[in-house]
Amino acid sequence: MSKKIEIFEKILDKNEQLAAELNAQLSAQNIFFINVLGSPGAGKTTLLLGLLPLLNEPSFVIEGDIQSDIDAVKLSQAGIGAVQINTGGACHLETPQIKAVLPQDLQGYLFVENIGNLVCPAEFLIGEHHKLLLATVTEGSDKPYKYPLAFEKADIILLNKTDLLPYLDFDIDFFTEGVRKLNPTAPIIKVCGKTGAGFKEVAYWITQKKLQSKL
Amino acid sequence: MSKKIEIFEKILDKNEQLAAELNAQLSAQNIFFINVLGSPGAGKTTLLLGLLPLLNEPSFVIEGDIQSDIDAVKLSQAGIGAVQINTGGACHLETPQIKAVLPQDLQGYLFVENIGNLVCPAEFLIGEHHKLLLATVTEGSDKPYKYPLAFEKADIILLNKTDLLPYLDFDIDFFTEGVRKLNPTAPIIKVCGKTGAGFKEVAYWITQKKLQSKL
Repeated sequence: MSKKIEIFEKILDKNEQLAAELNAQLSAQNIFFINVLGSPGAGKTTLLLGLLPLLNEPSFVIEGDIQSDIDAVKLSQAGIGAVQINTGGACHLETPQIKAVLPQDLQGYLFVENIGNLVCPAEFLIGEHHKLLLATVTEGSDKPYKYPLAFEKADIILLNKTDLLPYLDFDIDFFTEGVRKLNPTAPIIKVCGKTGAGFKEVAYWITQKKLQSKL
Repeated sequence: MSKKIEIFEKILDKNEQLAAELNAQLSAQNIFFINVLGSPGAGKTTLLLGLLPLLNEPSFVIEGDIQSDIDAVKLSQAGIGAVQINTGGACHLETPQIKAVLPQDLQGYLFVENIGNLVCPAEFLIGEHHKLLLATVTEGSDKPYKYPLAFEKADIILLNKTDLLPYLDFDIDFFTEGVRKLNPTAPIIKVCGKTGAGFKEVAYWITQKKLQSKL
């Protein structure tokens, strides 16, 4: 094994250790942490705005962006507790950034909206219980084939912007087949950020997973 | 200056040097190189399929993807010379990968479709004469504010999927204002991959830039 590979593996090990520590800490506090992944403009913030009021416990959101506080402001204006992380240029979030902004009085659910990027965020655990991947029909049905890691690692996959399906050539069978080759079990739920269609089903999945995590 | 920063700057310097060498080599051969950037599913391949037949000289395409050869196959089937690079997991292309797959008989235009990612590819020169950024109305009008580097570095910005504008709340003024704060001069051209609207204007810009580069 070359020295370069050894060093890279050590960095990954250290990241995984930090993520496992945060996960254990949150579990002990009965806080359930969802890491939300998706491309730029997939509708992550719109999902959170519609989904969080449907949950049975309070939520807090950490918003990751290269720059701007647009998303944290949107959530705060809707009465959802939120804090913004700006990475400057970095393409994904890491555990120490999450730990640094966790509020003292956290309870219920923690959501992190990761950097809009279908590549890098899927490589890094940040202490989450589950990864939620938000794909969209506007991106095209070949995305699982081209960006396999995000689809492979996701615990639940939402397919958003379904109101635009009549105007697109989106092949749902090709999409589903691509997902299933990588990930045989994650639920795939069609949603629509504009109408809120499907959000109740997502809220049910999340609340059930939180309940099961305490068994 | 810390050692970490010094090493990082040395890596960037080396990349820039390799990119400058490739750029000089292509210029000497009268080959004009466009680096195409955009999010996953922005419509990069559809743009190339419609645009390249409108150019006045032959084109060759290097397709960058994490995995799959879907895009190179599409271009080849349309009679456009193309080769696929699969990065495995890497989130952007670098100059040595481009050099390694350049055909011997290259002439006219070289296009590289970079990895679908609005963050990382903008950071790395790969020998191009110009960067073309393909944004979409489905991503939302706040993208320049959240992903500033790609918009700042672009020499031409296309706004794609304009056929979907009637079904979206896209604020073109907010988008344009965001772009202009970062990039006062790059043309912003509305295009539609489905109908080919705007492609002639893009082809004209590219052919003019190639002509000017020889003056």
